[in-house]
Amino acid sequence: MTHAARVRLCEVGPRDGFQFERTPIDTATKVRALRELAAAGLPRIQATSFVHAGRVPQMADAEAVAEAVLGIPGPEWSALALNLRGVERALSAGFRCVDLSIATNESHARDNVGRTVEQGVDEAEVMLRAALDGGCRVQLGLQTVFGYAQTGDTPLELVTGIVRRFAGYPLESLSLADTTGRAGPEEIRRTVEAVAGAAPGVELVLHLHDTRGLGLVNIATAHALGVTRFDTAFGGLGGCPFIPGATGNVATEDACWLFERMGLHTGVDRSAVAQVSRRLSSVLGRPLPGRLWSLDA
Amino acid sequence: MTHAARVRLCEVGPRDGFQFERTPIDTATKVRALRELAAAGLPRIQATSFVHAGRVPQMADAEAVAEAVLGIPGPEWSALALNLRGVERALSAGFRCVDLSIATNESHARDNVGRTVEQGVDEAEVMLRAALDGGCRVQLGLQTVFGYAQTGDTPLELVTGIVRRFAGYPLESLSLADTTGRAGPEEIRRTVEAVAGAAPGVELVLHLHDTRGLGLVNIATAHALGVTRFDTAFGGLGGCPFIPGATGNVATEDACWLFERMGLHTGVDRSAVAQVSRRLSSVLGRPLPGRLWSLDA
Repeated sequence: MTHAARVRLCEVGPRDGFQFERTPIDTATKVRALRELAAAGLPRIQATSFVHAGRVPQMADAEAVAEAVLGIPGPEWSALALNLRGVERALSAGFRCVDLSIATNESHARDNVGRTVEQGVDEAEVMLRAALDGGCRVQLGLQTVFGYAQTGDTPLELVTGIVRRFAGYPLESLSLADTTGRAGPEEIRRTVEAVAGAAPGVELVLHLHDTRGLGLVNIATAHALGVTRFDTAFGGLGGCPFIPGATGNVATEDACWLFERMGLHTGVDRSAVAQVSRRLSSVLGRPLPGRLWSLDA
Repeated sequence: MTHAARVRLCEVGPRDGFQFERTPIDTATKVRALRELAAAGLPRIQATSFVHAGRVPQMADAEAVAEAVLGIPGPEWSALALNLRGVERALSAGFRCVDLSIATNESHARDNVGRTVEQGVDEAEVMLRAALDGGCRVQLGLQTVFGYAQTGDTPLELVTGIVRRFAGYPLESLSLADTTGRAGPEEIRRTVEAVAGAAPGVELVLHLHDTRGLGLVNIATAHALGVTRFDTAFGGLGGCPFIPGATGNVATEDACWLFERMGLHTGVDRSAVAQVSRRLSSVLGRPLPGRLWSLDA
């Protein structure tokens, strides 16, 4: 098997999926899902985020989740942090992989956290240093890289400028997010090539939402360009409950099916993932947006 | 604009979508949708099918639908026929484009119509001659080309054998259907190349179901191979109510969005299509499986 024949998925459903669900999900339910996703062979799982419990009540049990799962062998366990306090909590909780996330679009930065992109970048650099000093591997994530309110409304030079600023740090990986599901194959191609040029040797990860149905097309496009790491969420969980019809991340089991059909190996048991999706669909009381979860095969 | 920059969609929702809906859809609702889909710029619309009303009650009004829509300018209007009686009814109703459809998988042929593939092919040849004698342009469709119960369980030599048998007829086009949504990019590539080799010069159409989420990936793959005609259904209507979670055709508006992002032209106003989808979602009392229909853009 050549390197390109192997694809590495990071399961983000327990964080990006659970975070905005209206139905409260108790810690035991989360831990059971995380345990089963680990057993399904996911090589990396973003287990939780250390964010303000007032803003994201679903993530208030981050420390409890960490305590329950960090000893489970198999996956690389990561946690998301959005400020220095979050990094410190992730370190204290025992995470060795921390995922940071930076706004790249001025309107998004203003709407979402009330500050400029530059202010966010400055803070991320402080966070990055703290995480590295704490002995962590750090994935740096860039949000809305392919657009926020419109496809392409995040200037690519701004993205590559941020990438260049961090290229000298020993990053574990660099993640590019299509937060609002606006990218198509051309945007993927242009952006991946520009970012790879701005940070040679840094491993790229794509975090794609399937809001407009192009998630798997974009994954296939990125794979053809040499990208082998992707974030996905079981059942296609994620998205935003405040945007009607806005669906979530690319579904883990659907991505596994695509890669199988392409003759590639994920090492993930997609039927086991689909079983997690079916149970969580019952817990949440609604169908999930992915395709395969509700089918037997 | 080069030839390859133009893509031609055939809207099949009014037939492949409506046919198995449990909620009865009255003729006026169908005709309004057909009128609006024509106004949205769809270059070809499969308006109805001439099949046994006892088996497919939703299509019992085929003649009434034909009378209401055949005078509407813009699209090429086609109808599906599955036996000689259907061809005769389509001709009498005034259709100039008839779509025929042949089973290619023995298990599917047995389960679906209780006969062999060979018997179906023989009957299709009689139907084809009748349609050509009646002055019609004929699209020949092959079902479950990429598999029925499993991906790849329809032998490709059987498919190309059928194609060769009909290659001498003046077909308007040849349609390859992924009826159960089992194809991936490799199956698309292998099959399109083999069929194009077996019927040089015949225009290929792909009719892809999105059951397992790869509809748009497969369309992009086929387009890269030179295929420029695709069947799609507004809102992603279609699928089978007897297979839980089995979603329908690739959604017309989602395909338009993909092609837009690829810099290609469909001539279709996808917002107008999405509006039809939203109204029909209300009529049917359920969300449709496509992505874009429920979003504003």
